[in-house]
Amino acid sequence: MQKWEVVEGNLASARGFRGAAAAAGIKKKQGELDLALLFCDTPSATAAGLFTANLVAAAPVVLSRENLLKSHGRSRALLVNSGNANACTGRKGLQTARESAQAAAKLLRLDPAQVLVASTGVIGVALELGRITRHLPALVQSLSVENTSAVARAIMTTDRFAKSCVLRSEMGGKPVHLAGIAKGAGMIHPRLATLLSFLTTDALIGPRTLQNLLRAAVDVSFNRITVDGDTSTNDTVVAWASGAAGVGVRPGNTSWAWFLEGLTELCQSLAKMIAKDGEGAKKLVMVEVVGARKPSDAERVARAIANSPLVKTAIAGSDPNWGRILCAAGYSGALFDPNRVDIRINNLLLCRDGVDAGFDEGDARQQLDRAEMVLRLDLHQGRASAQIWTCDLTHDYITINASYRT
Amino acid sequence: MQKWEVVEGNLASARGFRGAAAAAGIKKKQGELDLALLFCDTPSATAAGLFTANLVAAAPVVLSRENLLKSHGRSRALLVNSGNANACTGRKGLQTARESAQAAAKLLRLDPAQVLVASTGVIGVALELGRITRHLPALVQSLSVENTSAVARAIMTTDRFAKSCVLRSEMGGKPVHLAGIAKGAGMIHPRLATLLSFLTTDALIGPRTLQNLLRAAVDVSFNRITVDGDTSTNDTVVAWASGAAGVGVRPGNTSWAWFLEGLTELCQSLAKMIAKDGEGAKKLVMVEVVGARKPSDAERVARAIANSPLVKTAIAGSDPNWGRILCAAGYSGALFDPNRVDIRINNLLLCRDGVDAGFDEGDARQQLDRAEMVLRLDLHQGRASAQIWTCDLTHDYITINASYRT
Repeated sequence: MQKWEVVEGNLASARGFRGAAAAAGIKKKQGELDLALLFCDTPSATAAGLFTANLVAAAPVVLSRENLLKSHGRSRALLVNSGNANACTGRKGLQTARESAQAAAKLLRLDPAQVLVASTGVIGVALELGRITRHLPALVQSLSVENTSAVARAIMTTDRFAKSCVLRSEMGGKPVHLAGIAKGAGMIHPRLATLLSFLTTDALIGPRTLQNLLRAAVDVSFNRITVDGDTSTNDTVVAWASGAAGVGVRPGNTSWAWFLEGLTELCQSLAKMIAKDGEGAKKLVMVEVVGARKPSDAERVARAIANSPLVKTAIAGSDPNWGRILCAAGYSGALFDPNRVDIRINNLLLCRDGVDAGFDEGDARQQLDRAEMVLRLDLHQGRASAQIWTCDLTHDYITINASYRT
Repeated sequence: MQKWEVVEGNLASARGFRGAAAAAGIKKKQGELDLALLFCDTPSATAAGLFTANLVAAAPVVLSRENLLKSHGRSRALLVNSGNANACTGRKGLQTARESAQAAAKLLRLDPAQVLVASTGVIGVALELGRITRHLPALVQSLSVENTSAVARAIMTTDRFAKSCVLRSEMGGKPVHLAGIAKGAGMIHPRLATLLSFLTTDALIGPRTLQNLLRAAVDVSFNRITVDGDTSTNDTVVAWASGAAGVGVRPGNTSWAWFLEGLTELCQSLAKMIAKDGEGAKKLVMVEVVGARKPSDAERVARAIANSPLVKTAIAGSDPNWGRILCAAGYSGALFDPNRVDIRINNLLLCRDGVDAGFDEGDARQQLDRAEMVLRLDLHQGRASAQIWTCDLTHDYITINASYRT
């Protein structure tokens, strides 16, 4: 089994896919990319998706869930826009999503259920169907491997950089690709912690297998990051498999573990980019809890710390305030003895057995000034562990979110 | 039954109490009040307390819980300091708390179990016993009705104003008083949502009855406010009853409802002051959810909205982003139909049946610019309701918390 290595490319590096993007005037700033299409040429392509757990699901989420079911995981296209989430838009919003998918299906000669849709941006404002349908014929015309690169930029809202990753490996002498893009920033939550992520592969995978693989990879990646603890109405992760590489992935087969490893690496890589690009964030923090009695305890402690505004602002200020970290662990609901806890920032011990370890303040600040750091708690209660990625909470988060709508 | 009316005064307005405060050098800024003593002259006085649910409880919390039990609710004094929380300080911290209580008990001629202690301030730094014991004799000497006013100031940390309230009523022609002080600001949490609050009354109440009354009043006041969702290691609410008014309060008696009404009013008044003084807060927001299927659903929705950083920053920016409000309701875990929800800011309808109500942007901003506002959701699912007080999330929260320790 070959390892997966990072290579240059885009979603079409996985053979069988083509994409394109356009500036459709959905974003307020004219000329910015805000509409994109992704298409799979292989008629037998499969798709799998995971969507927000929010009771208030946006229209595109409702429609895509429905279409994935209807097509039995045989979706072959994605129509995505930024600048408007088409959420809290009622019956009319759902109609807009449905008609835009139908328009794309007609041009691509697909069944409407084979088109998935996704939207991101402001909530509660009507999405104009015309802006989408007007640009669809040109989008379909310009579908190409090269133009696929623009899709990652077209899904950005407050993101500061486009998030994209391509992995390559070989199986039985045949090259196989995994590619992914994501958009995140605000409203990044523990449960399905991304607004949008789209993944492609040229491996050959049945729809149910793909769904299981996606669930497993997302559980240890997108579900392990947090920016502000809010769960979006639009969270969507979809993976497509074209089969063009001629390499099959099946449960019970050695290819399963190999492929899951690649898919997990891809999702974790994109998830970390999202945490790093948390609104206003300057630092990427991995909260690692070890020595817990059981995995759920480790996860509870890690999530409480990663979500604490007091911890996140202290990190922004490079303040080695380990007391707030221990305090967050204390209210997490996990069971442990506070007098046995050790806390480290990178390798510097801040707290030993629940009290100040007598560290050098300057050393601690130096560790906290880094752009990436590991905050590690050892509970000394057992052998379970968990990792969560988060970011610091800065003035820019407030600036960005105090006037997002207007 | 007479109503309770707000009057001027301090904790000693309830007869039988005396207090005093001093600058003991525990706070970094020299000359600031940071140590206080409250004493009840009545030997038969009773006390009741509620403490943090955090597994990591500070030394003074551990000791006060223990002392309330040991004295069977017959505590007669409080020694409180600000500037240092004496939390995450291990065995030595507990020893410091114990010895400070013993020193106070000796001077006041009480059993050590009759002295309760409380601390607030930075976590994880040793509290110097000497700073406290050095000032104790003078504190005891200066105990007086007038000097009691200083106690509210001595418990402040990042608070911008001292929080105090006195209520007066009559029962059977006899005047009865209820007085309270509080400190809050950061780490204000849904469960026991205050750092410190101390309440006095001159009514005559048995310890168990006082505990039940306190629990009932706190449930609809301090447990209904949230600033940043962090639960402190030091949360403490204690009430003392001197009996000096000669008016008894017993369950089953008409005095019960009358007294609970006053105690609830007192606690809600202090709780609102805490929410209003949330770190960096400029606005006090009451989130009111009506029309829920059941009370727990109403509370879940109200808490999710009150805790959402995205909602709180939007309020800071006077942005009528009702989509974020509906979104937070959606991930609260409560069951409702998003297409039936109405959202109002004060009396202005922002969202009707889950979609934009077509409000005037300028009108909405005007409502959001107010220092106090009501954010009201009607779920149209039933008759249950809940209220939670919160504040906006501003730049100043970040500034205050990014470098609190240093």
